[in-house]
Amino acid sequence: MNADKIPDIIIGRLPVYLRALQQLSEKGMLTTSSQELGEIIGISAAQIRKDISQFGEFGKQGTGYSIPFLIERLRDILKVDRGWEVVIVGMGDVGHALAHYQGFANRGFHVNMVFDNDPQKIGQKVGDFEILDAAMLTEKIKQNKIKIAMLAVPATSAQEVADQLIKGGVKAILNYAPISLNVPHGVRVQYIDPVTHLQRMTYYLD
Amino acid sequence: MNADKIPDIIIGRLPVYLRALQQLSEKGMLTTSSQELGEIIGISAAQIRKDISQFGEFGKQGTGYSIPFLIERLRDILKVDRGWEVVIVGMGDVGHALAHYQGFANRGFHVNMVFDNDPQKIGQKVGDFEILDAAMLTEKIKQNKIKIAMLAVPATSAQEVADQLIKGGVKAILNYAPISLNVPHGVRVQYIDPVTHLQRMTYYLD
Repeated sequence: MNADKIPDIIIGRLPVYLRALQQLSEKGMLTTSSQELGEIIGISAAQIRKDISQFGEFGKQGTGYSIPFLIERLRDILKVDRGWEVVIVGMGDVGHALAHYQGFANRGFHVNMVFDNDPQKIGQKVGDFEILDAAMLTEKIKQNKIKIAMLAVPATSAQEVADQLIKGGVKAILNYAPISLNVPHGVRVQYIDPVTHLQRMTYYLD
Repeated sequence: MNADKIPDIIIGRLPVYLRALQQLSEKGMLTTSSQELGEIIGISAAQIRKDISQFGEFGKQGTGYSIPFLIERLRDILKVDRGWEVVIVGMGDVGHALAHYQGFANRGFHVNMVFDNDPQKIGQKVGDFEILDAAMLTEKIKQNKIKIAMLAVPATSAQEVADQLIKGGVKAILNYAPISLNVPHGVRVQYIDPVTHLQRMTYYLD
């Protein structure tokens, strides 16, 4: 099957496969098996074989998968071989944590600018970044052709800021505000809300 | 269908439904429809009707769903009507953000203790919490019968800390470290890794 036609549910698992493969690679390993990957990730080996077979023939019976080859293919499919420029909006605790996070660069992302609307914060430094005025958000995003934003503003202003991001040309939003965003067709949103993740586990607790 | 038998994929959507219903409730609304919920959440109305029908008969043709009733039922199913005690391990940027976060209490969770293993941090205050020594993690968790932990330590120590949590009786881990954890049957893990969320959107970008 063509990489353009991979079902969304499988696309959702590929970054997790990629992360596990990169962990193995950092340990110096060159080959792995669906069993080994499955144990690391907590998915059945059969599911992994099925998912990987969606985008080509990898590994042969008995020899397993080539880790560098599979990493390269996954990076290509997920388009993270190119280095995406990203902005962060909202310099509260979460925004600070994201601005300081060292794990973006080696996985395909580069923080380009950070924004806040608080006059006390604008012009201050967070790590290497000077906090820019959120009033310039749409303009700066257009100028710099940014397609991806991380949204770490309060729930009450998240929709308004999302609208400005989209007006500037952003097509993918990682939303940390605990509300569902209303976005036009063609714009993707992923949600990071610790409470929804906690709530989907409590169902299984006694 | 009995609430004990709801498929995991639907359980994953229920916290999002609950969040949207609570947003509507805060606006003073008393009824909603699958169409309205679908627009807020970005899921088809048909899917929402199907999901909700899994755990009983709600709303009648033409009158829609009672928001307070559906909230109560979802809180009951997800077991967040009881107020879960949670610990945070790792008081870096992410741990700080979680310790300061005001959105847990009204959605079923209460931060009980926070831990770090850095002698410089132990004994310091973060908001209302005194940072406790991670060496006491297993013991404190057992004593306080904690079942849920948020793990915000570096990737290199995440597995080791998870093992200590599980030894103390933790059954649900929200893992912010960008690695897959190896846990025994009966322990649930949810992952928050901004990069995997970003990578699953770049597939769709040009």
